[in-house]
Amino acid sequence: MFENIIKNVSRFINISTGEEKFFTDLLTCQTVPKKTVLLREGEICQFEGYIQKGCLRMYCLDDKGVEVTILFAIEDWWISDIASFQDQVPSKLYIETLEDSEIYILTPATKEKLLQEIPKFERVFRMLVQRNLSTLQNRLVSTIARTASDRYLEFIRVYPTIPQRVAQYYIASYLGVSKEFVSTIRKRLASKGK
Amino acid sequence: MFENIIKNVSRFINISTGEEKFFTDLLTCQTVPKKTVLLREGEICQFEGYIQKGCLRMYCLDDKGVEVTILFAIEDWWISDIASFQDQVPSKLYIETLEDSEIYILTPATKEKLLQEIPKFERVFRMLVQRNLSTLQNRLVSTIARTASDRYLEFIRVYPTIPQRVAQYYIASYLGVSKEFVSTIRKRLASKGK
Repeated sequence: MFENIIKNVSRFINISTGEEKFFTDLLTCQTVPKKTVLLREGEICQFEGYIQKGCLRMYCLDDKGVEVTILFAIEDWWISDIASFQDQVPSKLYIETLEDSEIYILTPATKEKLLQEIPKFERVFRMLVQRNLSTLQNRLVSTIARTASDRYLEFIRVYPTIPQRVAQYYIASYLGVSKEFVSTIRKRLASKGK
Repeated sequence: MFENIIKNVSRFINISTGEEKFFTDLLTCQTVPKKTVLLREGEICQFEGYIQKGCLRMYCLDDKGVEVTILFAIEDWWISDIASFQDQVPSKLYIETLEDSEIYILTPATKEKLLQEIPKFERVFRMLVQRNLSTLQNRLVSTIARTASDRYLEFIRVYPTIPQRVAQYYIASYLGVSKEFVSTIRKRLASKGK
């Protein structure tokens, strides 16, 4: 049951069987139907979740109330609004499932307990948050400095399986373009054999 | 000499005098004149720097070659392209000094040595990278979802001293507006008594 998440953290640290048990005993397993909002703007994020199965997205609302997708997350990714989770301050973001999902959850209390008991998990979370930062930094550069076509190419590099999994609407809301424009880019790239 | 940086890391961990010495012996102190580019797009970032004195900015070039400022960093902040530093991959970003600066530098090798010798520094870097993530996340939400006036208000909340320290050009390049528009917003807010 916990094979994937153990493999995930074992990329960064070696853990013994006893430590594995301590860690996995702290996890809550949630089965969440698709289209469930797990976090809303103004709420305080109470979870850091490992995605065992499914697909989620993080988004915000712009000044006209339009949804802007910030990132997608699928199997073997972690998802949280870490800024809200860490400092227990209201989030500016939404997190929702796009497919039926299974998520292993740490809360602020269980994460703290884990770090107290097995301090080398500090390294795991440092590496995870660095990856998150890296993803977000690329996302930011892409948003402010690339053309829509280049943003689409970057998007399929980071998320090769997402176009098959989610409605075009979400991809458009990630790229900041219309659904029609996503179709146009895809057709243009297909005709170039990319 | 190292009082500030010790205070900075002591927010997250307790360190003994011996550990302090081990840590500070690993730091290289660099005095950098203003307008020095420390990292260019395509280069691999070899530093994680604590700003003892001065002001720096991180920026990228958009598809027309125009500079877009991603963040500013002043005294008591850390600066690096952590994505490039960690995985030793080419950066998409530039980092330059805007004032004469003093920076305490860790390289990939000295950081690794520090973490090997004093593993509780994992916590320090986890917390630092979380703050960085939080700043960047707010920056992204601000960029894609707020009006220019709201972006300016958010900017002066995060960087209250920057308007007095850097040329209006850099603020405009952060907000994604013209210099003239920054003046207009400032005048409008001043007339409202903000």
